[in-house]
This record gives sequence, structure tokens and C-alpha cells, in this order.
Amino acid sequence: MAKKYVYFFGNGKADGNAGMKSLLGGKGANLAEMAGHPELRLPVPLGFTITTEVCTYYYQHKRTYPPALKKEVESALKKIEGIMKNKFGDLENPLLVSVRSGARSSMPGMMETVLNVGLTEKTIPGLIKLTNNPRFVYDAYRRLIMMYSDVVMEKAAGIETKDDMGIRRQLDRLLEEAKHKKGVKNDTDLDADDLRELCDKFKQKVKDVLGKNFPDDPYEQLWGGIGAVFASWNGKRAVAYRRIEGIPGDWGTAVSVQSMVFGNMGDDSATGVGFTRNPANGNKHFYGEYLPNAQGEDVVAGIRTPAPVNESSKNAHNKHMTSLEKSMPKLYKALLNYQKRLERHYKNMQDIEFTIERGKLYMLQCRVGKRNGPAAVKMALDMYKEKLITKEEAIMRVTPSQLEELLYPVIDPKAVAGENPIAMGIPAGPGAASGRVVFSANDAVKLAKEGIKIILVREETNPEDVEGMRVSEAILTAKGGMTSHAALVARGWGKCAVVGAGELQIDYAKKRCRVGDQTIIQGEEITIGTGEVITIGNVITVDGTKGVVYKGQLPMIDPSEENETLNSFLKLCDPFRRLKVRTNADTPEDAKKARSFGAEGIGLFRTEHMFYGKGAEVPLFLLRKMIVSRTTDERRSALNELYLYMKSDIKGTLEAMEGFPVTIRLLDPPLHEFVPHEKAQMENLAASLNISMDDLERRAQGLRESNPMMGHRGVRLGITYPEITETQARAIFEAAAELIKAGKKVHPEIMIPVVSDVKELANQFEIVKKVYNETLAKYKLKKFPYMAGTMIEIPRAALLAGKIAEIAEFFSFGTNDLTQMGFGFSRDDIGGFLPCYLEKGILPEDPFQTIDIEGIGEMIKIAVERGRKTKKNLKIGICGEHGGDPMSVEFCHNIGMDYVSCSPYRVPIARLAAAQAMIREKEKAKSKAKKGKR
Amino acid sequence: MAKKYVYFFGNGKADGNAGMKSLLGGKGANLAEMAGHPELRLPVPLGFTITTEVCTYYYQHKRTYPPALKKEVESALKKIEGIMKNKFGDLENPLLVSVRSGARSSMPGMMETVLNVGLTEKTIPGLIKLTNNPRFVYDAYRRLIMMYSDVVMEKAAGIETKDDMGIRRQLDRLLEEAKHKKGVKNDTDLDADDLRELCDKFKQKVKDVLGKNFPDDPYEQLWGGIGAVFASWNGKRAVAYRRIEGIPGDWGTAVSVQSMVFGNMGDDSATGVGFTRNPANGNKHFYGEYLPNAQGEDVVAGIRTPAPVNESSKNAHNKHMTSLEKSMPKLYKALLNYQKRLERHYKNMQDIEFTIERGKLYMLQCRVGKRNGPAAVKMALDMYKEKLITKEEAIMRVTPSQLEELLYPVIDPKAVAGENPIAMGIPAGPGAASGRVVFSANDAVKLAKEGIKIILVREETNPEDVEGMRVSEAILTAKGGMTSHAALVARGWGKCAVVGAGELQIDYAKKRCRVGDQTIIQGEEITIGTGEVITIGNVITVDGTKGVVYKGQLPMIDPSEENETLNSFLKLCDPFRRLKVRTNADTPEDAKKARSFGAEGIGLFRTEHMFYGKGAEVPLFLLRKMIVSRTTDERRSALNELYLYMKSDIKGTLEAMEGFPVTIRLLDPPLHEFVPHEKAQMENLAASLNISMDDLERRAQGLRESNPMMGHRGVRLGITYPEITETQARAIFEAAAELIKAGKKVHPEIMIPVVSDVKELANQFEIVKKVYNETLAKYKLKKFPYMAGTMIEIPRAALLAGKIAEIAEFFSFGTNDLTQMGFGFSRDDIGGFLPCYLEKGILPEDPFQTIDIEGIGEMIKIAVERGRKTKKNLKIGICGEHGGDPMSVEFCHNIGMDYVSCSPYRVPIARLAAAQAMIREKEKAKSKAKKGKR
Repeated sequence: MAKKYVYFFGNGKADGNAGMKSLLGGKGANLAEMAGHPELRLPVPLGFTITTEVCTYYYQHKRTYPPALKKEVESALKKIEGIMKNKFGDLENPLLVSVRSGARSSMPGMMETVLNVGLTEKTIPGLIKLTNNPRFVYDAYRRLIMMYSDVVMEKAAGIETKDDMGIRRQLDRLLEEAKHKKGVKNDTDLDADDLRELCDKFKQKVKDVLGKNFPDDPYEQLWGGIGAVFASWNGKRAVAYRRIEGIPGDWGTAVSVQSMVFGNMGDDSATGVGFTRNPANGNKHFYGEYLPNAQGEDVVAGIRTPAPVNESSKNAHNKHMTSLEKSMPKLYKALLNYQKRLERHYKNMQDIEFTIERGKLYMLQCRVGKRNGPAAVKMALDMYKEKLITKEEAIMRVTPSQLEELLYPVIDPKAVAGENPIAMGIPAGPGAASGRVVFSANDAVKLAKEGIKIILVREETNPEDVEGMRVSEAILTAKGGMTSHAALVARGWGKCAVVGAGELQIDYAKKRCRVGDQTIIQGEEITIGTGEVITIGNVITVDGTKGVVYKGQLPMIDPSEENETLNSFLKLCDPFRRLKVRTNADTPEDAKKARSFGAEGIGLFRTEHMFYGKGAEVPLFLLRKMIVSRTTDERRSALNELYLYMKSDIKGTLEAMEGFPVTIRLLDPPLHEFVPHEKAQMENLAASLNISMDDLERRAQGLRESNPMMGHRGVRLGITYPEITETQARAIFEAAAELIKAGKKVHPEIMIPVVSDVKELANQFEIVKKVYNETLAKYKLKKFPYMAGTMIEIPRAALLAGKIAEIAEFFSFGTNDLTQMGFGFSRDDIGGFLPCYLEKGILPEDPFQTIDIEGIGEMIKIAVERGRKTKKNLKIGICGEHGGDPMSVEFCHNIGMDYVSCSPYRVPIARLAAAQAMIREKEKAKSKAKKGKR
Repeated sequence: MAKKYVYFFGNGKADGNAGMKSLLGGKGANLAEMAGHPELRLPVPLGFTITTEVCTYYYQHKRTYPPALKKEVESALKKIEGIMKNKFGDLENPLLVSVRSGARSSMPGMMETVLNVGLTEKTIPGLIKLTNNPRFVYDAYRRLIMMYSDVVMEKAAGIETKDDMGIRRQLDRLLEEAKHKKGVKNDTDLDADDLRELCDKFKQKVKDVLGKNFPDDPYEQLWGGIGAVFASWNGKRAVAYRRIEGIPGDWGTAVSVQSMVFGNMGDDSATGVGFTRNPANGNKHFYGEYLPNAQGEDVVAGIRTPAPVNESSKNAHNKHMTSLEKSMPKLYKALLNYQKRLERHYKNMQDIEFTIERGKLYMLQCRVGKRNGPAAVKMALDMYKEKLITKEEAIMRVTPSQLEELLYPVIDPKAVAGENPIAMGIPAGPGAASGRVVFSANDAVKLAKEGIKIILVREETNPEDVEGMRVSEAILTAKGGMTSHAALVARGWGKCAVVGAGELQIDYAKKRCRVGDQTIIQGEEITIGTGEVITIGNVITVDGTKGVVYKGQLPMIDPSEENETLNSFLKLCDPFRRLKVRTNADTPEDAKKARSFGAEGIGLFRTEHMFYGKGAEVPLFLLRKMIVSRTTDERRSALNELYLYMKSDIKGTLEAMEGFPVTIRLLDPPLHEFVPHEKAQMENLAASLNISMDDLERRAQGLRESNPMMGHRGVRLGITYPEITETQARAIFEAAAELIKAGKKVHPEIMIPVVSDVKELANQFEIVKKVYNETLAKYKLKKFPYMAGTMIEIPRAALLAGKIAEIAEFFSFGTNDLTQMGFGFSRDDIGGFLPCYLEKGILPEDPFQTIDIEGIGEMIKIAVERGRKTKKNLKIGICGEHGGDPMSVEFCHNIGMDYVSCSPYRVPIARLAAAQAMIREKEKAKSKAKKGKR
């Protein structure tokens, strides 16, 4: 059978349906469904869709059409004319049509549309007679000329112009001139004569600029429009969009040709848009806006404020206006019925467009409606309760980033529209926040005490800044990437942060900040309560979810503690997961918070974090003493003091986790990170060690490294200074033993970081085992549960995982370091090239944000396979920052990990992502089984 | 059949032979061979060997012997007595024996020996009567007491003593006292009475100290001696030695019991050692020394100067002495005959021991003789020419480190014996050198101009030091590893260097250097020709082959240009290699040198090296200008100037390589490495860019990175600044085009470094291809050969090699970086932990010196497999520092690489190693085939 290129729809029938998106495009398939499905049969303006196969043919055959197309289009047009009782190009009763694109996947604004096709010098008089509205007709004509000359005669013809010289812009100027001449402001103030005159000028201009007459033949207009849509599929913008979104270039677009209906034919006409439920909060009410006597594009253009369709759509801006419900109750009732049927039919919230032409309601479009996070969660839950969708469908309805909106305040999207960012960076900590800028952590602490909301702005942060970071509303740095100190700390706290905003030129001395030649932050001296004078900068707003910084204070939307909904939704998800979700937490407080978010253990407790922030002074001092020690005795003496602090910290955390496993990573960072920079601190330290400042500086200098990330850190410290491992093991085991004695449940897991060889692990396990036995003896215990395992974060360890698994009881992938070493990308230095890599498409994503499945993922896969080959039930998890990234969570699920671990605020997201991964896996298995049967 | 534990030898017969080393130990097997093989049947003192199986039994059965042993020993003893016509313990004609250890693999000095066993109060009179030499007998007795009490009664009994309290030391003191009392200096000045008295005192002391009588029963002595040898197998020193040498603990030692012969029985007696060829130069002359009227241990102890065995063994010290050839011509002739037969039999140079007892010649030992490098090469060549050995055997006879001795001066081993090193570090540049210490490169340059030999001592070096490094005899640094800047530069030049000598505390200000509390280098002010006063340190000697530093000037041995021998030997090797050998060279001079060493191309030409050293001022300045450029225009302008220098450098190198392939690596290091530190240079740069110093400093600061090794470098520079790649490609292609126009042959290979993804490569290749086409057009050429490939030095690239090979025409493994990233070891920072790792046996070797086959090797293997799967004939080489390491070369051979590339001075070593790898491969294949047949 010959291929069918044209699919008719309307009048209760349709050749196609919603399942034919790849052939008819999203728009065409939905129009067919609305028009023809027995459950719907809605009043859709008649039309037909030219298939995507024609697009493919068009590009494969030097921009020509299949020979059969012309006839099919003409016959479809005839069918419309037969039902509509009018005729394309008819002098008395002319049919006008729209020509629109429609790809399989939505590409909003990327392709072209031409309206009012069929309006010519010859058909104008008939239409005027028919509508008795010459202004409407000339207005439609000037719109046709503007769109057509731009889309078909210029763009599709491949004429390249600079912005100011394009035909569209030139016609716009003529329109402005006409209004200016008449002394009016709005297009609507031009009358029929003005517009007729304008149309003549337009046509003259088109001829002057493009060297061609504006076509006066309706068929020429139609084929021109169809060709322009196909041509726009390979327009620059569309190609760029597809590359970013990963849409294949050979999918092609369909073209829908539909008879025009007009909402601007008088007071019995109107046009509007609506959502079957409120997209902002998910409430189950029809929600929409309409404009009486207007065309669709007027709603979009925002020239007039639209009125609410009903009472429940009223808001502060439009509550005084008459709703459609009141003004056209009968039509509203029909609309209400249609939207309800659409939602029930599609089993999802629908975004609809409608037009009322002289008292008759037409449905122009329907599609799945966009919604914000809280609305997505509420709708998913409600629709599941209404038995509209299954549990699985409900879970799949919410994207992880929508869930994120329930956890943090965000900038009101309306407020952002008009604002220009003053800087862009890497979104490192979620949510948004406003405050006054300070450039030093000390100032931050002092000003926060005064109750001033502040934002800490630094080149980069280090452990000494932590207290200042904690009291800040947000953190903004000029350097660093997703796993820089600032980003790690911020994310751990769920605090808003933007890092690596490279354009910022911070002048600490002058307490100001410039971008290019502009000063964006200017300091001002204020006197605080203590009488001290501190310089503080102006207010900025930081969007840590998007990585954008604005000047001034922008309005926020608070998720307003949707905890009940959130928890109900997550409880729905939990039974579907195979992956456990743990958290990265370093304090009893974080541990408790993570438990409240549903964490099933701690996947990463960093011992070194007790040296940051509040209460860290004494332990940090002791750590420094230990670090600059030269002899084992000096070091042991510092460690013995430090040990008590370690024990208490660990004990609190073990207790907070109520018997859930707690993975404690032994000291990881290069020691010199902790060496003090301030003179007073150095002097204090020298005095305590009874050495000279010179001597201390020499020792500190000796710790400096060229590439500390690959230096003397992690297990390498434990090997060279066994007493460091011993002390930590003692703190962990004695904390556990004391809790057990007090009748509590504990499950510590000791994790050795930066391992590259099994012998390193053997060396450390021997120390751990020895201390364990000593602890049993000391506390008169027979045994208590503990595990000893390793991070897999060094490429060599991944390859040698089979050997390492001979003694490791668990693996935890440190994907930050694995990504660093695997790519040879220093996380702190990627600012110089990663943005360029993403822009040029060399990398699809920041590999520190989403696991690079192809490369680093391959390493992980090798390690999992080799590890499990040696030890079948090896416990495997991930504790890098990727543990909270949905795509990475799915990867972890797919390769069979046991758990992911992420910062407390991302635990809910990981729970969702893990459930979705499992559902997707089942769906794939089902569809595979189906295929197998066929 | 019952196991045989005792193997008799002597009198023209032997139960064993040389092939039974694992059962009889090296010594026992060779004694059997000498005594019993039909070709030899040399006069070996009769004896028997107790097998290593007895040792194994001994340790498996709580230090007891197999029941059958006693009888077998007694019967072997009987056999000796029967032939010798004497008897163990006999009053009139007593047999004396020696008891010696002998492991499968030589463990010199690690195990015990007891001589003169069987001498008791009862047998002394008979022996006196027999020898008519009471002094000889009492001397033998006091030796027995000294050895036996030490070895058997103290050490084997497990009595631990501090050095000063050991029985041996206490008896030594009694000996000293006796000489002191008599007023003489030498042992030989004591007469028979003195010695008899001393023996009595010895026995009393033994009883006092060890609480036991010295055994007076010959059998007790014998079994004590045997037990002591077995016990010494697990002595501390032996265990440590085995661990270092990788000798398994369960091999065990054999014990050889042999009738004593005495070279100290008068003027018709003598003892000596010899080599069948000269071990110092390989000359084909019997070479040896002897002492008349002396025992073997006297030769070793060096109390008397030995005489030469013949005329050709004469040297400055002994030329006045009478040779054995002259003093005992008949015996010498016999000896000459024996040694010749031994060499012919063993087909290798033999190290022999002999004793003449009252005019009768005995052969005591023979083994393969140690030799130095030049001798090894000469002997291998000569023996091949003599048809004594095959080509393959000749090639396998020379170790790569022996070959190295032919390339560099070394410290005279005799001179080192008494010296204590003042510091130890990593052997980074070959050979040895002496000179006065300077602490600054500038001073080095000035002093070298004065003709003073200097050694540059620095914490670490950087590009600004290069001129000073070049003029130094050697380089010594406190920091850095095998691939630090200092090591890389030194090795490239074949210059002596020790790096990472961590104990050095360099005080630049005071121009001195301390180790612990000791000042080892002290500055002294001198006035040089220009009138300038410079501080210069004392003389040190640096051994860059061993990584050791000595105070003062030590005598050197110069390889004295053995070029002819070297070349003949390497020509022997070449046909056996499958691997090509290329060189890492950055200048036309280096390229020429490498060609003279036989390099078959350049595997690594580093474009950045034109910015180091002599003549680098202008290019370096231009590079700096380029680096701190902020706009593309600024950068292009600097690059356009730089381009001419690049072209000329590359042209010279391409020309020097005469059509051999030259792999040119595009700019690799992080840019900030080149930012100047000196103020004058900064000012100059700022002026040239027409910017303020503030501005320049800010730009320089912006280039600073936390982990530059994983920062903005290599291909990342080429992606962010395509003009850098473009300029380099232009320099390469235009250099090539100009040479082709001049009728020369060229083969440039463009290599992109630090690649982690195929898209990076695609991006760069596009630029390269464009420039290539432009060059063809400019020079009116149709085409010329070039290749475009990549370094594989990032773990991710190794895993994704299959994809990368889709466009790469060759791979070159950058094993330095692959080791850095694979292990997460920063080459500059391993000083903090690597020594500890090696000491604790966590790593078997420095992985920057020898490829870590297990881990990094696995990565390379994966990359080779995946790369060749995509492109079957993919050209693969290695250009890391490992390319000159013999073990690594063998690995490269085994996994099927096409070539290795190393610094010019290591090319001969790689040629040898590659040939040996091939021969080993063939041998394995043969022995596998043999096994298959069986």
C-alpha cells in the first residue's frame, strides 16, 4: 500500500491518534486524539497533518516533496471545505488556515508558524462581507504579511540578515510609525483604514527589501508555509536546541494545517488557556485565563491583562475582572466538561488552548501541562488516590528537580523575568537567599550576631571560614567547582551557594567586587553594637539552584513546609527501591536531620569535619599540634588529647543513628590543609610545642605540596603515622563499646580512604583489629559488630578491586576523587576549562555533578564486577557527591550497588530517584519480555 | 627408595652434579661437578653435602634431623677416611673438616662457616707430630675456638648479646692483649707457646661467658657446626637478605662438610683466588692473587698484600712481588689448565678458590664470577666470537645496569667501602660527579664560568634554574621524585642527579645545609674574576646511579669511551628486538646524540622545552606574554612572534632525524609554570603588554592552581585557546614543508597530550587538518606524510581507548602521568610517603621508575587491547620515563607495543632490554612446547 502522507482530523473523526506522535508530531497527534477519539470528539477546528516522513523525504530529496503529497493535501483541503461549507481562495466565503510545526518531542519556539494563510487581495472583500468587520480582516492580513514575509520569504529562503535589517523588524518599524503618526499607543487603536494603508506599505516594503511581490495566491501561500516549517527544522536555533536536548536530527517535524478560528470577532468571541489543575499548587480546580475579543497571540504578548476563567482562578491582579464562568456560563460549562474529559482521558493534568468564535467554542490544543514541584507532588498523590493512575505512574510523575523545590526556597520566577544576573557560576548549594555582602568570615560572624542577613563572598573558602559560612544566608565564591570546599560544606548543610563565579574580581582590601569594569558590590562602613566599625556591601540575591547572582533583594517562594505531602509521596516511593539511601553527615545534628529525611544510615562520616566550625577550636588546635609534630612521641601526645574529642563526636553520631550503620572514614585530607595561616595562631602553636616560630614555619613548609590532592593524605597518613589510625580506631571502638554497655545498638563501619593497593588496607586493618581486641578486653565485651572496608576512589584500586575485596568487607565509591583522578581534573581548577568543554559539547555534563557513565562509570563497573567476583556479597555503596544526583543514582541502581549516600537534604531526592530507577528497570524488562513474545 | 640426604664428592667421583643446585646448594653442586664430571675430575678435597631437604625437615620438625641422617653422615665420613687414610678424631692422624653453608642462590656472608672441626686436646699432639708445626696447629685451634664459640655456642644457641659483649669480641680482646703483652703487632708474631697459652685463656673465657665447656669431642663439634649452619638460615641477617632479594624462605640451605687442606703449612703451601678472565676489563687472561703460607681467610682479611698469580695479573701494588707462575711454575701450569677447563666446561667466566698444601694443589670452589659492566660486555662478545656461547647467550650475559656502566663515570667501588653517605635520595640522573656546592642557579652559572666544578643543591628546581643545572656537574634536591623537574631534566641530559634527599635542610639565607643536627655543607665566601663575592660550599660527591651523597671528592672510574665494544654488542642485540627504540629529545643536538646511540626516531619532542635553558630568553618572554594575555588578539599577537622560534626548533630536529618519525607533543604543562617570579622580569612583561604590574599580578594569580598536574594543561589549553594549537601545527607543518622543498625526508607525528575523551581529539584534529591543508596550499605541495595521535596518560583515556582509536592514528603511553593519576600519586609529593611504602613492602618498587605492571600495566593492557580492537594496526609506543627502564621495556614488549622512547643516554639500555625480552619470550615458548610434548 502506498504511504499515507496526510492525516485528516475534525468533525468527530480523525485518521490519527495520540499514539502516533512520531508520525504526526505531538501537536498533530493530540489534535487527532481530541477530534476523533470516541471518549472525546471535541470541537477541534478541522485540519490535517502532513507526516514527519515527508520532512525526512524533503531533506533526503533536495528539499522536494513526495509526488503524491500535492494530491493528498488538496483532497484533505477539499474535505475541510466540504464540511465547513467554505473554500480555500473563495471570493465569497474563503477558508483561512494556520500552518504549524509539530515535532515528536516539544521544541518550544524553535520552529515556525504562519497564521491566516489564504487571505489575499481577492479574498479580503468576501471576508469583510462575511464578518462585517473590515478592521478584523485587515488586522489579520497585516499579521499574515508580517509572519509570512519573515518566515517564508526571508528565513526559509535562506536570506541572512543582521538583526536590524530583517524584514520583520522593518515592518515593525512601519507599524510603530503608523501609531506615532496617529498619536496612539496600542495596535488596537489603529482602525480598518489605518491597517489597510499599513498593509499596502508592508507589501511595498517586502518588495523593496526582498525583491519579490508578496504572494497573492492562496495555494502559493499554503505551500510556502509548509515549506517554511520543514526548512525551520534545520534552522540554526532548532539544530542547537536538538544538540543540547539530544533529539536526533532525523526525527523531522510534522506540519499541521488547520482552519482558522478567530477569537477577535467581537464580544461574543474570546480566546484563552487553561490547566485542568492548578499548576502552581496542584489544587484540583480548573485554572485558566481568557481575553474577550482577542487572538491567541494577544494572550501570549501580555498586552492586555487576561481575566480569570472562573472564581478559583482569581488572583490579586485579576480578581476585579469578570470570569468566563460569569460572562459566558454556558460555554464555560462546556469548557469545564471538555477539560475534565481531557484529564480523565489522558490521566494527567492538561494544558489547553481554546477559542470562542462568535459564540462557538473550539479546542485548539491540549498537551501535558507543566507544573512546579509542590504541584507535581500533590497531583501525583491526588491522582493516585483518585485511582486515575497507578502507584508507579504517580512516582514517575515527579522529577527529582521538582522534588527539590519542596526542600528549599526559590526565587519567584516572575521576579526573575526582568532581571539581569550580575554573575553566573556553578550551582553548588540549593535554593535561593538574599543578604548583604561581606568578604570575611570573621565579619560574617560579627554581623550575623547583630541580626543582619549576610552573604559571604570569597575567592574560595577554607576550613577557617566555616563558622562564617554557617552564619551566612548563602555563599558565593569566585573559584572552585562542584566539589570545592565551599560547595561541599554548603551542600552538606543544604545551604544556598554559587561557586566558581569566575568573572568576580574581589578586592579584599577595598572591600568591593567588580565584574569587568563594573563595580557590583561596594562596601559601606557601619558601626555595630560593640562599637566596632565593619565594612558591609550592598544586598545581592543568590540562586544556588541555577547558579545565578542578582543585585538587590528578589522575592522568594517558600516551599512552606509541605512536609506532610512530601512524606506521603516518599512513603509511596520507598517500597519500590532496591537501593538503600544513606547520608553523608559529620555531626549528631546532621545525623538527626538526615534521619528525619529518611536516611537509612550514614555512608560517610568525615572525621576531619570535627575540626571545622563551632566548638572546633580545641580539637583543631590539637590536630595542628599533631600535624606539625616531628617525632612519634610528639604526635602521640597530641593524638591522646585529640582522642577524647573524636570519641565524643563519634559517640553522638552513632547514638543518633539508632543502630543504623555508620561508615566512619579515617582522616582523609592532606595535613597542610589544617596548618594555620594567622600569626597569633602560629605563635600559640609554637608555644604549645615549645619550638621557635622559625622551626614551626619550617615544619609547616615541609607539609606544603605541589598537588595536595594526590599527595600525602588518606591511608598514606595512616601508613606513615600508624598512631593516627590507631587513635581513630580507638575513638570509634570505645564510643561503640560505651554505647553497647549503655544498652544501645551500634553498627560502626571503618572506612580507609585513598587506597590504591590491598597491602595498604592489610596494613591498616591489622591496626584496627588490634585496637578492636584491646577495646573488647578493656570493656569486658565478647564482641560487637563492626565492618572494615575501603573507599574506591583511586583508578588503580578500581582495577585491582578483585584483590582488594579479598580483605575489604565493603566498598564505598568516592566518585569525587575517582572523577578527579580518572579524568585528571582537579576539582578546584576546572573553572579554567570546564565551562568551555560544556559549551563546545566536548562533555555533556559536569562530571562532578553527574557521574560520567562512559568513563568513570566503566571504572566503577569494573570494580563492582571484580569485587563481587571475589566476594559475592560484598556490600557496595557510593559516598561521593554523586549519591544525590538522580542520573547517578539510577546508574548506581543499574550496576547493582547496595546503597547511595548523599547530603541530608538530598536524601528525599535519592529516595525518589532510586524508586524511579527500579520502576524503569521493571518497565524495560516488561517491554523486553513483550518483544521476546512477538 | 628412601630419600638420600648425603652426597659424597671427591677422588674423581661425585654423587651430585652442577645441575643439582636446589638440592645441594650452589657450592655443593659445583664441588660435585668439579670433583666428579668426566670433563673435570679436579683435585677437590674430599667431602660430602647434606641436602637442603634436611634443612626443610629441620625446620618442620622442631629443629631435629631425619633419623637416617646420622648414619649417612658417618658413612660418608668413613668413605673420606678410607681414601684419605686418616680418621676423624684419630689421635695420630686426625681428619679435620670444614662445615659450610650453601644455598641454591648465593647469599654472601649471610650464613655461617666453621673451619678446623675435629681439632681437640686429644688430636692436637698427633697433628703436631704429623705436621711438625706446633704453631700451625695451635693457630688452627684458636681459630676453631673463635669461630665455633661465636657461631655454634652463642649465635646458634640463640644467645643475644650487645655488640661489645659477644664472645667473638671478647676473644678478640684477649688476642689483642696477648700481642700487646708481647709487644708485637701481627697475629703471625705470636709463636706456638703464645698461641697455646691463648687457647687456654680462650676456653676459660668461653666457659665464663657462655657457661659451657668448649667441646672436646670431634663429633660434638661436627654436629654443632652442622646445626649452626642450619640455624643461620633463619638468622636475622639471612631473613632480611632473602626478603630483599626475593628468595623464598622454604628453599633452605645445604651443608657441605669437606676435609681441610691448609695453605699455611709452610713455604710449599699457599692459598689464592682467581678469575678465568679479568673481571675489571674482560681481558682473556687468567687473573688472580695468592698468598704463600696462608689460609683463605687471610686473603679476605687483607692483612698481607697478596701476590699476583701471573704476569698479566700484576698491578701497581704488587708488581714487585713474585708471581705463582714464577715461584711454583708446575703447580701454576696445573692451575692454569684447571681454570681453562672450568671456563670451557661452564661456558662462563669462573671465580675460583685454590689452596696448595705442601706442594699439592686443591680446588676449593668455583662459581660464576662477578664482573663490571665493561668486562661483561667484552666477555660476552669475546665468548660469542670464540664460539663458546651463542648470540642469545651473549646478549643475556649482560645486565642493563652493567651496560649503564659503559655510559657514565662511576665512583670507584673500593673508595666507597669506608665512606658513610651524608644523605640518601632517589637516583635520578646516572653516573657520579664531584664538585663544590652552590645553592643558586645564578651562582652556578657565574662559578662555572670561572672553571669551578660545582654541584647545584636546591629544595626543588624549576624552569628558571635550567641554565644553572646545565653548567653543574650534578644536581641534588631535597624534594621531588623520579619525574620531578630536576630528575626529568637531568636524565634528558644524562646528567648525574639525586632528588628527594628528604633529610637535607637547606638554609638558602645562610647558604648552608644540615642533616639532623649536623652541618654537612658550609658556605665560604670567595671573590670571583668579576670582583663579585659569592658564597660557595665544600666539595661533595653525588652518586646518581645509587642515590647516595658523600662528603669530599671520591675517586671515579671512567668508562673511557668503550664505544667500539658497546656498538658491536648492541649490533648483536638489534636483530633480536621486535620493539623499536626511539628517544625523547627536544633539540637538534639531543636528536643527533640519540641517533648516535641508535635511536630510530623521536618518541617525544616537548614543544615547551624550547623555553628552558640557553637561548630560551626570547621565546620564554613571548610565551609569558601569550600566557598572561587576556584576549584572543593579545594571545595571537604573542603566538605569531613565537611561531618563528617554534618552527626553527622543529625544523632542526626533523632534519637531524633524517626521515625517522618525530613525535611532537603540543604544549603540555600548566601555563602558570612559566609565569616569571622575578620582579625585573615581571616589569618587563607588564611593559611589553602595556598593562600595570597590579594587572599583571592579577593575571598571573588567576593562573595559579591548587593541583596544577590535574589543571588547565595539555589539550585543555588547545580547546580553550585553539590559536595555541593552530600556531604549533603551523610551525610543525611549515618546518616539514620547507624541508621537503629542500629535498629532505621528514615524518612528523603530532601528538595531543592529556586527552580524556575522543571529542577533545576530534576538536584538535580539525584544527590540525585545517592548518595542514593551508600549508599544502602555501607551499604548493600535493601532500606530505604526517600522523596525528594522542598520548594515553589519563586513566579515562585508557578505558575509552577503543573510541579514541577511531580517530587517533597512534597511541603513546605517557606513563608518568598515567602512574600519577592511576595511583593518585603526585610525582612531586611522594617524598612524604613513598620511602615508607618501599620500606614496609607495600609497594615493591617506585612505580615512577618501573611500571607498576599489576595496576598501571593493567590500564595499559586494556588500552592496547581496546585500541587495537578498533584499529588493528594502531601504532603504539611509550614515551614516559619508563621507556628506558629494562623491566618496563620487557613489559612493553610483552603487551605488543611497537616502540619505546627514552632519554638519549638510555637508548642503548632499551636496545639491550628489548632484545633480552624477545629472547626470553622465545625461551618461554620453547620450554612450553617441550612441556607440551612430554
